Amino acid sequence: MKRVGIVGTGLVGASIGLALTRDGVTVRGFDTDPRRATQAVERGAATEAVPTLTDAATDVDVVIVAVPVGDIAGLVIAALDAGAPAVTDVGSVKAPIVAAVEAARPDLAGRFVGGHPMAGSEQGGLDGADGDLFVGGTWVLTPTDRTDASVFSTVRRLVAGLGAEVIAVTPSHHDDLVAVVSHVPQLAATTLMDVAAGGGEEHATLLRLAAGGFRDMTRIAAGDPGIWPDICVANRDAIVDALDGYVDALGVVRALVAGRDRDGLLELLERARAARRRLPVGGAATEPLVELRVPVPDRPAVLAEVTTLAGSMGINISDIDIAHSVEGGGGVLVLLLPARDVEAFEAALTQRGYHHSRRVLP
Amino acid sequence: MKRVGIVGTGLVGASIGLALTRDGVTVRGFDTDPRRATQAVERGAATEAVPTLTDAATDVDVVIVAVPVGDIAGLVIAALDAGAPAVTDVGSVKAPIVAAVEAARPDLAGRFVGGHPMAGSEQGGLDGADGDLFVGGTWVLTPTDRTDASVFSTVRRLVAGLGAEVIAVTPSHHDDLVAVVSHVPQLAATTLMDVAAGGGEEHATLLRLAAGGFRDMTRIAAGDPGIWPDICVANRDAIVDALDGYVDALGVVRALVAGRDRDGLLELLERARAARRRLPVGGAATEPLVELRVPVPDRPAVLAEVTTLAGSMGINISDIDIAHSVEGGGGVLVLLLPARDVEAFEAALTQRGYHHSRRVLP
Repeated sequence: MKRVGIVGTGLVGASIGLALTRDGVTVRGFDTDPRRATQAVERGAATEAVPTLTDAATDVDVVIVAVPVGDIAGLVIAALDAGAPAVTDVGSVKAPIVAAVEAARPDLAGRFVGGHPMAGSEQGGLDGADGDLFVGGTWVLTPTDRTDASVFSTVRRLVAGLGAEVIAVTPSHHDDLVAVVSHVPQLAATTLMDVAAGGGEEHATLLRLAAGGFRDMTRIAAGDPGIWPDICVANRDAIVDALDGYVDALGVVRALVAGRDRDGLLELLERARAARRRLPVGGAATEPLVELRVPVPDRPAVLAEVTTLAGSMGINISDIDIAHSVEGGGGVLVLLLPARDVEAFEAALTQRGYHHSRRVLP
Repeated sequence: MKRVGIVGTGLVGASIGLALTRDGVTVRGFDTDPRRATQAVERGAATEAVPTLTDAATDVDVVIVAVPVGDIAGLVIAALDAGAPAVTDVGSVKAPIVAAVEAARPDLAGRFVGGHPMAGSEQGGLDGADGDLFVGGTWVLTPTDRTDASVFSTVRRLVAGLGAEVIAVTPSHHDDLVAVVSHVPQLAATTLMDVAAGGGEEHATLLRLAAGGFRDMTRIAAGDPGIWPDICVANRDAIVDALDGYVDALGVVRALVAGRDRDGLLELLERARAARRRLPVGGAATEPLVELRVPVPDRPAVLAEVTTLAGSMGINISDIDIAHSVEGGGGVLVLLLPARDVEAFEAALTQRGYHHSRRVLP
């Protein structure tokens, strides 16, 4: 990785830029607000501020589009048109963006793989930028049947270099998951705050009673509202489904409370506590890795199929390489996975008709 | 304040004890688990461990009952029977407790005023005890028509000495408020965690995508489940109402998302953000105070009426004193309030037919 173009030098774009320049990578920063790109250079988040998107997409290894959800597809397409060999983005919604790019540029779409770091947000100031923002966090990539394996590999390497763990899932699976784990929580926090604040005269008293738990639960309601309308529209169906699921579950809780069902309440509270305590707490970079070699037929869907299979099992892809057989037609997918996940993944591969060999690394 | 009895030396009881012994107060600690009372003495949270509740309630100025919600009323009654001149508690629910005490001991109930510090919880280990747990926080007191003014004044002084700001509201008003600001948030967090964890196979992937916002929102789901069934049963009606209000509000959000109503979503998000940013962040102890003197007729309801009027406006009672007129019948309620709240409170007093005089303190 020698040269990277960053389109959009806000919080996420500049944080990526800081990490890359620190590693000696040349970063071309473009922003629709040229002052912001200049400030990014001053902060060390870009090597140079370039005046057009074409400049950011020319003579680079990867272009990263880090702009609000509504603007991503158009700028990805422009970067592909400008000749970028690999393009990714950092948007909170993936299926509509990937679909728009594949529909508009069926011939170039293989060079794009959608991405979403589960930290920061597309908006937010350069001031909050931090080269370590992604260390130990999860970064989702969403390859499809069309995704070029070498493009996926390039983007994966870049993301891993930022310190993040990579999970690959399909675009629509990503959108379903973030509806539950990000979009509905945001709307739930916003609604809780709004309900609590809506009591008119009672407002002041109620808010004085707001202790730590309420503060924790509503913290994200204090974030920038600007990004959410676009996200809600782009991920409408998954959010509506997840909201319905949440409201149904609240209905079950209501019945437990109304029915004075102490045992049922305790069971729910204990189950949720156990799940909360199992939440992974970042990087497990030092765990032993295992190499799996999977001979694959020459069909483009294999990369997406195998990587998103791992992703659907919550497995981080520590490394991936594609060794094409010299005769053409087929090759070998080389995957590096955490040792503890390998057995389950091998079983899943076998079930889907893949053969593989395993090698434990020293 | 020379001697205090603490019944229940868990997190809250021991935290109160630590603050009091630090100030030179003699603390008699009683716990149904005698080892816990002994440990409290070793931690410095009590001066002596006493073997019976009667010991903790004898020859003291105040008894504080710091046990789980389901056990409070019985122990308050026992403390009153043992001759305690003033009793308070720290339970998360107030109306059923206050009603039970007033029904069981109509003649002694004036010596009890319900309390609820908005920090810590009734359960939780001695290990987490902290003499500064309440500094800058809010502590609710719930006087009624029966509450003896001097008992209220004693308990208020004790609580203020712990560094907390006092808000007085009626027991049922307290319960309605905490349903919104504490009980429903707990159930909402628990439910959100349970929904996210309930996806079976998807579980691992979903939890890897859980970033800061989700972690904030579900943090309280990791707390001790044991206290909640009792709280939910004790505050059933208010919780069911608040849950219904929350679910209705989520229905409005669902309609905004389903209808792709960007403007409506933005308006909601901005309103909630403004409310979240207005959340008070602890103590304003250095602000100027104003003294109000309110001549009151000799009816017992006045103390509760005037103090809970302040509480319903979110106003902290910095000090309170009752000057009885020598002729008997009536007297003067002397209140110390933050200067910024005085005008609104004066208007509310006048509207309710009270006369008063004001004195700005040097």
